[in-house]
Amino acid sequence: MFFSVTMSLDGFIAPEDPNELMGKKWVELQKWVFPQRYFRERLGLGGGGEEGPDNDLVRDTFERTGANVMGKRMFDAGEHAWPENPPFRTPVFVLTKEKRDPWERLGGTTFHFVNDGIESALDQARQAAGDRDVRISGGADTIRQYLNAGLVDEFSIALSPMLFGQGIRLFDGVDIPLEAQRVTHLNYRLPR
Amino acid sequence: MFFSVTMSLDGFIAPEDPNELMGKKWVELQKWVFPQRYFRERLGLGGGGEEGPDNDLVRDTFERTGANVMGKRMFDAGEHAWPENPPFRTPVFVLTKEKRDPWERLGGTTFHFVNDGIESALDQARQAAGDRDVRISGGADTIRQYLNAGLVDEFSIALSPMLFGQGIRLFDGVDIPLEAQRVTHLNYRLPR
Repeated sequence: MFFSVTMSLDGFIAPEDPNELMGKKWVELQKWVFPQRYFRERLGLGGGGEEGPDNDLVRDTFERTGANVMGKRMFDAGEHAWPENPPFRTPVFVLTKEKRDPWERLGGTTFHFVNDGIESALDQARQAAGDRDVRISGGADTIRQYLNAGLVDEFSIALSPMLFGQGIRLFDGVDIPLEAQRVTHLNYRLPR
Repeated sequence: MFFSVTMSLDGFIAPEDPNELMGKKWVELQKWVFPQRYFRERLGLGGGGEEGPDNDLVRDTFERTGANVMGKRMFDAGEHAWPENPPFRTPVFVLTKEKRDPWERLGGTTFHFVNDGIESALDQARQAAGDRDVRISGGADTIRQYLNAGLVDEFSIALSPMLFGQGIRLFDGVDIPLEAQRVTHLNYRLPR
């Protein structure tokens, strides 16, 4: 099981208020992904787009994923925003207290509503994923639950050169060991 | 003016309690720098050491610096911990309310105690630095004051593959624009 998110340099991945998700700076956070050709095709945003390493990464992330797990907050924010043909194109297991029948959408995305906890959702997602991996779509709270339970194998972060000062922190209060590797040197300039 | 610090993936650079600075995980945060040849020589830790790109970076950081600016908390933590020949080897301007005569140490380090604010400290440091740059040594609060005042030109971060969950955040509440650049893709594994 893995996750892959875009995070600001100061650790934020989303606004406190989901209604601000379409606000300028939060859209800016994700803006690296919108010009990518694979992403544009997948979301029906029209043809063209970049085909460099960022595009390869977006494609690899989608293609390795056989099922998604998602928190209720993310589902609620997306339920009326995703198109008829949502970008997941796999079964999506939504962690919720709400009892609800599976919701089948176009293009291979079916939302299943799981009421009995994160391990059950992961088990169901693993079965549905077959040979492929399970992705935690988000949000931060769901990712942290899986991290703290020791159920995440690896993760990738697109670190955005932005400072937000507020929002929802990806790693708030997470204190777990990562596999040893060297530090990553990053350089930033301030505009004049 | 620049700064260069090591930060955990979740944004921390130091413990809340300075007495914990020598605690295991905080030493671990800085451990990439101790094997570097230039750092070992500079701190009198004995010969040998790595000579790769990390070593070049440590040397470049020290060599570009003609003067340091430092907060009172960092000075207090180091005053009795630094050797007779502290690693700065430049004038160091300490932001403090305490009135105190300059304190000259071996090897070119003289601490000057500045009572009239961050801009005055920067002015004095710039004069002392000559052709070279001014480095903010730390800590986080001092760095944030200079960032929020728009006085930092650039900075570098050695992002450590660690999650701490608590401590002092480098960018706590900083909301300023950085110069546009692409995202940085980072990958981490969890130990099995």
